[in-house]
Amino acid sequence: MQSHDDSTDYIIAPDPGAARLTRAVNGIDQAGQVVQINVVEERPLTIYLNGQEIVTAMTIGDYPEYLALGFLKNQGMLRDGETIKGVDYDDDLEVVVVRTDGQTTYEEKLKKKTRTSGCAVGTVFGDMMEGLEGLTLPATSVKTSWLYALAHRINTTPSLYLEAGAIHGSVLCHGDRPLVYMEDVGRHNAVDKIAGWMVSEGVSGADKIMYTTGRLTSEMVIKCALMGVPVLVSRSGFTAWGVEIAQQVGLTCIGRMRGRRFTCLSGADRLEWDADPGSVPEESKRSGRKGGV
Amino acid sequence: MQSHDDSTDYIIAPDPGAARLTRAVNGIDQAGQVVQINVVEERPLTIYLNGQEIVTAMTIGDYPEYLALGFLKNQGMLRDGETIKGVDYDDDLEVVVVRTDGQTTYEEKLKKKTRTSGCAVGTVFGDMMEGLEGLTLPATSVKTSWLYALAHRINTTPSLYLEAGAIHGSVLCHGDRPLVYMEDVGRHNAVDKIAGWMVSEGVSGADKIMYTTGRLTSEMVIKCALMGVPVLVSRSGFTAWGVEIAQQVGLTCIGRMRGRRFTCLSGADRLEWDADPGSVPEESKRSGRKGGV
Repeated sequence: MQSHDDSTDYIIAPDPGAARLTRAVNGIDQAGQVVQINVVEERPLTIYLNGQEIVTAMTIGDYPEYLALGFLKNQGMLRDGETIKGVDYDDDLEVVVVRTDGQTTYEEKLKKKTRTSGCAVGTVFGDMMEGLEGLTLPATSVKTSWLYALAHRINTTPSLYLEAGAIHGSVLCHGDRPLVYMEDVGRHNAVDKIAGWMVSEGVSGADKIMYTTGRLTSEMVIKCALMGVPVLVSRSGFTAWGVEIAQQVGLTCIGRMRGRRFTCLSGADRLEWDADPGSVPEESKRSGRKGGV
Repeated sequence: MQSHDDSTDYIIAPDPGAARLTRAVNGIDQAGQVVQINVVEERPLTIYLNGQEIVTAMTIGDYPEYLALGFLKNQGMLRDGETIKGVDYDDDLEVVVVRTDGQTTYEEKLKKKTRTSGCAVGTVFGDMMEGLEGLTLPATSVKTSWLYALAHRINTTPSLYLEAGAIHGSVLCHGDRPLVYMEDVGRHNAVDKIAGWMVSEGVSGADKIMYTTGRLTSEMVIKCALMGVPVLVSRSGFTAWGVEIAQQVGLTCIGRMRGRRFTCLSGADRLEWDADPGSVPEESKRSGRKGGV
């Protein structure tokens, strides 16, 4: 497995150097010494659908248009084939407005709020399971060598996490290639930004793999299924309901993927066992993510 | 620093053996071997305030009454001195109803929804900063030896995290003693359950320390301040806005606390430097929390 830290063949890679995404803060360490550390920004972004204020998200603030589009898409507020007339972002007002040609279902959906187990996008409007009935995900096969290559590549890619920590990452991948690597204070923002990119570019999820640093909760599994991505991989663990839903919709759910280890609790039939785990190095301390992010 | 794994002197300790909180799930590991692992449950709990449905939370499902009370309290939906006439939990309906003698402000608050960077309780109704104006937190001093003792004790206490992973913990502490250790799929549920316990027991936060496994985001800092707890400690990192609010309200904010290391980015004036970091052992691999939880 090759090790390369360059991000040249990502379509979208993290930009840890972007001034707007982190801030240097002075503090003291355990020895009472003055230290300066970089911390990630967290700022409000209010999302409008046509004339209606939908929600205010706390986000690092990159790709607001993708975040708005992806959030609305993953909430089922944008119907398939609905024309997006425009997405307007106002930096000063911290507002993004998505304009469509259709009537939206937000009024009905806004009636019901569910706080999920997810980070940051901890709100689902309407029925969480809506759109899952009759959903079938393609029998795309996944080589275990791809999983190891992706995990290694992603964890060694320069990122806001490696720069400042306290942030989640999600990566849309094809085969052993990571395509779009989004980070955010909440992992669900990261996934929604990917969904927004897919909507904008007309990219299908059918032959993709979603890698996330976050836990495989019900909301994460549902988002991935609604995006049409048949394989969800995480270095973190599972919740029982997340696994249950993955098994119901036939989504391949792989968790606790660190170094040579992983656990597959759903959809193992997609796996092609072409890698020898024994030949995979344990991950370095640097690429191992610390708790709580 | 003594090391004891018993939880005898907790008022509330995790119950990793509780059948209702985890589920054994069969899967396969990286070698294709069948494995059975315990995963945490995640179930909906709908919270009502008097006649009004407020929100549905995804939770592991322990202490539903505390979660409901604490959520409503931390949302400013229960005024100080308001009489709680009753808290009724229906296990079958997965509903908890909090009954008060007062008029509630929910209608106004429900108009505005903010998705925060928090896990699970990613929703704040109304103005996030409401109640922070003029808030002053006591100048309670904190010995650094307490911080090390608490971190060691908490990380070696039998817990759902050590049993099944993929879960957050928050612990209300007094001096070097952890009092109430709550876990949940979302760290904000854990904090809200502590807030609910404090409301029920009439416990003040003024002389307490809050330890959490989660990131120090704006919502976490605001919750802690509104609970009157002047010191917030986390093994995870910070967001810039979280630090900014902590500095504004004079809350001591300590993050990245692992082994002998920690970083204080706000309220260092409360610290009493009575411990020699060099004498503190680095944490064991077992007590180090993995990414994404």
